[in-house]
Amino acid sequence: MSQGPGLGTAGAAGRGLMAVEDALQRLLAAAEPLTEQETVATEAAVGRVLARDVVAALDVPGFDNSQMDGYAVRCAEVAAALAAGQALPVALRVAAGQAAGELPPGAVARVFTGAPLPVGADAVVMQEEATPVADATAADRAPASLGWVRFASVPAPGQWVRRRGEDVRAETIVLSAGRRLTAADAGLAASIGCATLPVRRRLRVALASTGDELIQPGELPPERLPPGAIYNSNRFFLEPLLRRLECEVTVLPRVADTREATEAAIAQAALAHDVIITTGGVSVGEADHVRPVVRALGGLDLWQIAMKPGKPFAHGWIERARLGGSGRCHVIGLPGNPVSSFVTYALLARPFLLRLAGAAVEPTLPPAWPMVAHFDWPQADRRREFLRVRCNSVGGLDVFPNQSSSVLTSVAWADGLVDKPAGTTIAHGDVVRYLPLSALLD
Amino acid sequence: MSQGPGLGTAGAAGRGLMAVEDALQRLLAAAEPLTEQETVATEAAVGRVLARDVVAALDVPGFDNSQMDGYAVRCAEVAAALAAGQALPVALRVAAGQAAGELPPGAVARVFTGAPLPVGADAVVMQEEATPVADATAADRAPASLGWVRFASVPAPGQWVRRRGEDVRAETIVLSAGRRLTAADAGLAASIGCATLPVRRRLRVALASTGDELIQPGELPPERLPPGAIYNSNRFFLEPLLRRLECEVTVLPRVADTREATEAAIAQAALAHDVIITTGGVSVGEADHVRPVVRALGGLDLWQIAMKPGKPFAHGWIERARLGGSGRCHVIGLPGNPVSSFVTYALLARPFLLRLAGAAVEPTLPPAWPMVAHFDWPQADRRREFLRVRCNSVGGLDVFPNQSSSVLTSVAWADGLVDKPAGTTIAHGDVVRYLPLSALLD
Repeated sequence: MSQGPGLGTAGAAGRGLMAVEDALQRLLAAAEPLTEQETVATEAAVGRVLARDVVAALDVPGFDNSQMDGYAVRCAEVAAALAAGQALPVALRVAAGQAAGELPPGAVARVFTGAPLPVGADAVVMQEEATPVADATAADRAPASLGWVRFASVPAPGQWVRRRGEDVRAETIVLSAGRRLTAADAGLAASIGCATLPVRRRLRVALASTGDELIQPGELPPERLPPGAIYNSNRFFLEPLLRRLECEVTVLPRVADTREATEAAIAQAALAHDVIITTGGVSVGEADHVRPVVRALGGLDLWQIAMKPGKPFAHGWIERARLGGSGRCHVIGLPGNPVSSFVTYALLARPFLLRLAGAAVEPTLPPAWPMVAHFDWPQADRRREFLRVRCNSVGGLDVFPNQSSSVLTSVAWADGLVDKPAGTTIAHGDVVRYLPLSALLD
Repeated sequence: MSQGPGLGTAGAAGRGLMAVEDALQRLLAAAEPLTEQETVATEAAVGRVLARDVVAALDVPGFDNSQMDGYAVRCAEVAAALAAGQALPVALRVAAGQAAGELPPGAVARVFTGAPLPVGADAVVMQEEATPVADATAADRAPASLGWVRFASVPAPGQWVRRRGEDVRAETIVLSAGRRLTAADAGLAASIGCATLPVRRRLRVALASTGDELIQPGELPPERLPPGAIYNSNRFFLEPLLRRLECEVTVLPRVADTREATEAAIAQAALAHDVIITTGGVSVGEADHVRPVVRALGGLDLWQIAMKPGKPFAHGWIERARLGGSGRCHVIGLPGNPVSSFVTYALLARPFLLRLAGAAVEPTLPPAWPMVAHFDWPQADRRREFLRVRCNSVGGLDVFPNQSSSVLTSVAWADGLVDKPAGTTIAHGDVVRYLPLSALLD
């Protein structure tokens, strides 16, 4: 794909660059989901991908029950007592977890939240709307009474009653295969009795940083950095982001800068991982060995994507058959600049990894919120830009002034990205498309 | 605090209920942040609370460098060559990580992204805007040439040059104490050479579910649930949510329903944890032993909060001096209904825990986005409601039809809450306040 001016196709992507959505769709099309499953405890399944539909084996709630602390009543009897100026006797007391029994005629039941509704009762009156009374107007007609209570109004049938099966019906699908489980999902699965859940196995990801200029933090103190050297930062955000996706992450050791050493390292990583992620090198550097090695073992597409930051991006694959194994190991080549690497990870690599892990993934960017820009951005760019922005205290968005792609200051400061179309500018007060980082990285 | 009609103060909270923000402020005021620190690897610090400011020991970048693959030039010499129709000789080749040296007069340097700028150069021309030529117009004046190159236009001084210290200046605070570290923060810390970071120790949280009706999933299959019993679900979402906050979580075993057993269990938990979180029981059930035990060992505030779901909420504390220890263990009593428990956790307990863990926490709900309701909600409620909603594909919000607080179906379905003020209704097309779950639970 050419990056020269005037050589490519026209249109939104501009100058022959690939549109972000096209890149995403190509990546997703190349991801064949994992099929291996395992069973994990429900509370440990959060973040994992559900391998099979979860079907309810019971109604939830399993019985009609009270939504309030109060009194279970027959509405008609409350109406009659109210008309006669009488209190009603409390014949039963039912707490959550108890069996309810039957409500005797002419009486009410003291009930607590979650308690089964006694048979015969058709509504619940909140305790705040009932007045216990010391003695009744007709004490002699009391069945084994637990006291008397007076009501101020007549409830509607069904009031404060939670019906059996109202929340979940038996035999219905509660959670669908391919879902990336949330904490609420784990709670929901527990509510229908699931102590364990079937999930896809974790994705195995190897992380490699290429670039002769990279020094590992801790390896040398700042005052001893050689000329031209910088600290490796990509590994330090990619590793936690991958763990957030529940990947098993291996950080690959640095290899000698020879074709043989690179080939040995990549072959070994390809046999033990589903994906190798590299940052830097793959799509640019002249002396890079990763590119020819991946090409020789499978294939490699180098893309110039119409986005800023983040233009160079690579997707490759290694046929393990050439290494004595089977199946494919994917290679994702992120740009070397940390901000480019971060943004292309969030917008492209993450959905690819989720699809590979078996998750249902839309082939589009996450939904953007319309937000008001409290800044001017007068420069149009031929590429679609993802500006690092932050919500301010008055409901607008501020922009980080230095949008350089070299250091993560802007990303650490930001809580989201503004998705700015190619060739457009932003004036203070414009409504822009805001992508919160929390949703992009979850 | 009374929950009877007409007995409380008037105003937004209604009927003497406590406003959500008041509850939040009281909770935060009661949270004395942890002081103990530990040192962890930078890539493992994500989600933890930074204990001390991180100050840059170096400029980033540490040297002027190229933002592009291209040629480092002197702008005036490019202008002169262009005017004379001449190419310029390539005298140096500098890749990232190499020392740059000096640019000889009348020559340019081949440079790659991240390479230090040779001394004397004042701009970079992208390789796409330069044309290598086979032979020069004046080959005899070439210094040890690496080829020749012709430029189509004159760059502005500083073009594609990333200046030393442009991203981070030495001696400035890069990350502030009290910050809950993100993946980008870890990358940023690595970029200034931090292999480790000082963080507060993890919060120790004990989780207890009270309620005789609760059966643990796996304990009994659905068909053998006794009358009135339900599965415990609160523990299954609270545990992962607490781990997401990097808490060390202990799930307390069920205790016998006696005052002595309850006291022994609470005393033991109070000595080993910073917080005990209970669901159900504390603020309601008549036979509950937790309340008097906590009162006897310290104190307990029972609040009726003007929110739906989630009215009953308790904050207590245990003076460990009464147990032979020192300091306080906090007690948070969440409502028993799963949805109420989930929402009060997100809006009240989570910020309390973060403050206790040493994080800087605003005493307000997270910012809401203005979104358009694609639903009608004609019922006003005297309490502020947090409706479970989801973004639809056309940029609006759909509402989950069953907003019952008994089961997590609505929360599992939702991606956010609509914060609906007390006494208001919603009509299709209204702009409402949307709180994304990703931000509420992060």
